[in-house]
Amino acid sequence: MLHVKTPEEVLALIESEFSPAAGTEYVSLTAAMGRVLAEDIAATEYVPDFDRSTVDGYAVRARDTFGCTDAIPAILPLQGEVLMGQGAEFPLNPEECIAVPTGGAVPGGADSVVMLEYTEDYGDGTIGISKSAAPGQNMIFRGDDVYPGKVILKKGCVLSSQDIGALAAIGRVQVPVAKKLTVGVISTGDELVPPEVVPGPGQVRDVNSPMLEAMLTAFGVNVINYGIVIDDEVLLTEKVVKAVGECDAVLLSGGSSVGVKDAACRIIESMGTLLLHGIAIKPGKPTILGKAGIKPLMGLPGHPVAAYFVTKLFVLPLLGRLMDRDMTAYTVTARISESVSANHGRAQYHCCRLEHRDGILIAHPIRGKSGLITTLAGAGGYFCIGRDCEGLPRGAEIQVTITSGD
Amino acid sequence: MLHVKTPEEVLALIESEFSPAAGTEYVSLTAAMGRVLAEDIAATEYVPDFDRSTVDGYAVRARDTFGCTDAIPAILPLQGEVLMGQGAEFPLNPEECIAVPTGGAVPGGADSVVMLEYTEDYGDGTIGISKSAAPGQNMIFRGDDVYPGKVILKKGCVLSSQDIGALAAIGRVQVPVAKKLTVGVISTGDELVPPEVVPGPGQVRDVNSPMLEAMLTAFGVNVINYGIVIDDEVLLTEKVVKAVGECDAVLLSGGSSVGVKDAACRIIESMGTLLLHGIAIKPGKPTILGKAGIKPLMGLPGHPVAAYFVTKLFVLPLLGRLMDRDMTAYTVTARISESVSANHGRAQYHCCRLEHRDGILIAHPIRGKSGLITTLAGAGGYFCIGRDCEGLPRGAEIQVTITSGD
Repeated sequence: MLHVKTPEEVLALIESEFSPAAGTEYVSLTAAMGRVLAEDIAATEYVPDFDRSTVDGYAVRARDTFGCTDAIPAILPLQGEVLMGQGAEFPLNPEECIAVPTGGAVPGGADSVVMLEYTEDYGDGTIGISKSAAPGQNMIFRGDDVYPGKVILKKGCVLSSQDIGALAAIGRVQVPVAKKLTVGVISTGDELVPPEVVPGPGQVRDVNSPMLEAMLTAFGVNVINYGIVIDDEVLLTEKVVKAVGECDAVLLSGGSSVGVKDAACRIIESMGTLLLHGIAIKPGKPTILGKAGIKPLMGLPGHPVAAYFVTKLFVLPLLGRLMDRDMTAYTVTARISESVSANHGRAQYHCCRLEHRDGILIAHPIRGKSGLITTLAGAGGYFCIGRDCEGLPRGAEIQVTITSGD
Repeated sequence: MLHVKTPEEVLALIESEFSPAAGTEYVSLTAAMGRVLAEDIAATEYVPDFDRSTVDGYAVRARDTFGCTDAIPAILPLQGEVLMGQGAEFPLNPEECIAVPTGGAVPGGADSVVMLEYTEDYGDGTIGISKSAAPGQNMIFRGDDVYPGKVILKKGCVLSSQDIGALAAIGRVQVPVAKKLTVGVISTGDELVPPEVVPGPGQVRDVNSPMLEAMLTAFGVNVINYGIVIDDEVLLTEKVVKAVGECDAVLLSGGSSVGVKDAACRIIESMGTLLLHGIAIKPGKPTILGKAGIKPLMGLPGHPVAAYFVTKLFVLPLLGRLMDRDMTAYTVTARISESVSANHGRAQYHCCRLEHRDGILIAHPIRGKSGLITTLAGAGGYFCIGRDCEGLPRGAEIQVTITSGD
């Protein structure tokens, strides 16, 4: 007999029972956005590979400008000009200057660049400098951005557009990322019809498959939707066996009746190991986790809101574990607009609508029974009331996980 | 002569000069995830369309159970059974009960369901009920979730997986969304080589095109990357004319030299109206905005970090305006790990690395000159120091915009 586990115990179970298994593939820079980096990335060259000016102006030896002013400019012969995109082919002679554009190479011998604004071209081959230059001024030095061996990105991170820029800068145009997992989704229940069908008496539309498909796709995995299977243990077993053969993980959703729940348990047990039966959260208690070899099998609650939270809180971390993905998450601070009571003993999750009012973020809890998915449409986020907490008073500060567009 | 504008003025300018222009298309439920909803969505039916049980048990009239206890159960003849996925074909007789599964239809005449746990099947066609039922107990009523005419999703929202679930529940399988915009990206500068090329003397890799392509793709637009154009006004004009013909908006990036900047200005002016030249932010001041007919043309700074912030802060809101997209954003509260000074007069943006430590979120500002994109690799977010602020002391509370995976 398996006991109901706390959310922390479930996450620890996932960590101990499953290992990174997705493998690595190489994708192009533009295809790497949002993917999970599969190796640390170190630079192999200097960026930039030459000293660069950050302004339009004149490269000088700083000491040749010391003490100059508007009234007594330093007058330096113009030795030449550096063109954009070309090397500085000659070094700077002492007591001379060389014109350089923003981003252009600073010639050897120069240690600073004077901005155009502080210079005057006398038209006779000399330049007047009216402000002292400090060594290093207006320059980026070779390797300032990065040097060979410097690790710029850590394995496991989800690549952002900044990261894509950094990879471009060091010329890593083939990026090692975790292969996309394939996750199978099966809905069960005699009462379910596909979303495009008008439900007959006693029937409801299958909400979980399209919702799970959307969540999983947004998380970066491929989804095979096996559709709806009626409440028949033989048919369901056949479908699960097929899905386990074709996928890296299988989610069985629905089956709110006791018969289907028991069948799901027996099927998962028959295919490998049953690891978990029940999580101390609300909604979402009737959750099953097992594995067939290294592949996770999960039975999710039939109620869409419960299935939503179980997927957010446990399925995505499980898939993240298989991809060795950094799952760091951030919450925003908000004040709750009305008091919410809670069941002692179970962590309780609530969706909320968010509103910025007078510089304060207000969270309006969405009331409703756990089966009512449409009440969650347009929800901006969710918050948790811990299992040792009896509720929250109006105005209490809460941490909200943002879900809009997610 | 156009004056440098504050960020607020630029956003107001975008609002006044541009209008929603993307148009509407219909996509399937699973393709609608992350898209911008183009119309309010109202339900056209009741969900559920029948009274439903939320537990396995017996449908009863509550009054027939009043006063019963473990010791003195109410004994009710079992009138029949409701099967999952079928209607309740007969109404409940007074002082009888009907078996219903979780999610099953509750027959007419019944006003509550007693959980299996509080009942005993005597095997003689009668059921003992050991706990009083309250009217409405363990039931979801017809239309509890949604009723015809109820608006469940507002135009402009970015569809989340919860929203997809809600659309499935009401049978909206063709979803009206804003058409994807096509945005052209052009890089200019004699010093640029594509990321796959090893830079020669005085050359650097083009960071902005792949970074912008990643950001824009993640934002949900199509990108045409026109590659690198050398610093030649005729060639650049040709390319911009072509891009304006093919795209809904065009971004000209790079051109850090004064010559290229001036050329970008002249080209944008020649194609329509120049609206803005310079924004009072750091980095990102040398930004140009114009329009050719209703199509925005933007000249971004050449420095990748500056281009990054200008895109985040102004390009995405501009594209959001064209798609009529809700741009509500949330920030997380963090404490800054070291003091940061600021330039009075310009809003200053800093990337930071984030660390959870002892339950507090710490933001480590990333130092570095604005051209240094690799220092931003792995940054978790950014914060702003307002233009009237001279800096932030160590430990100050700041609002961080999360950018990881973004």
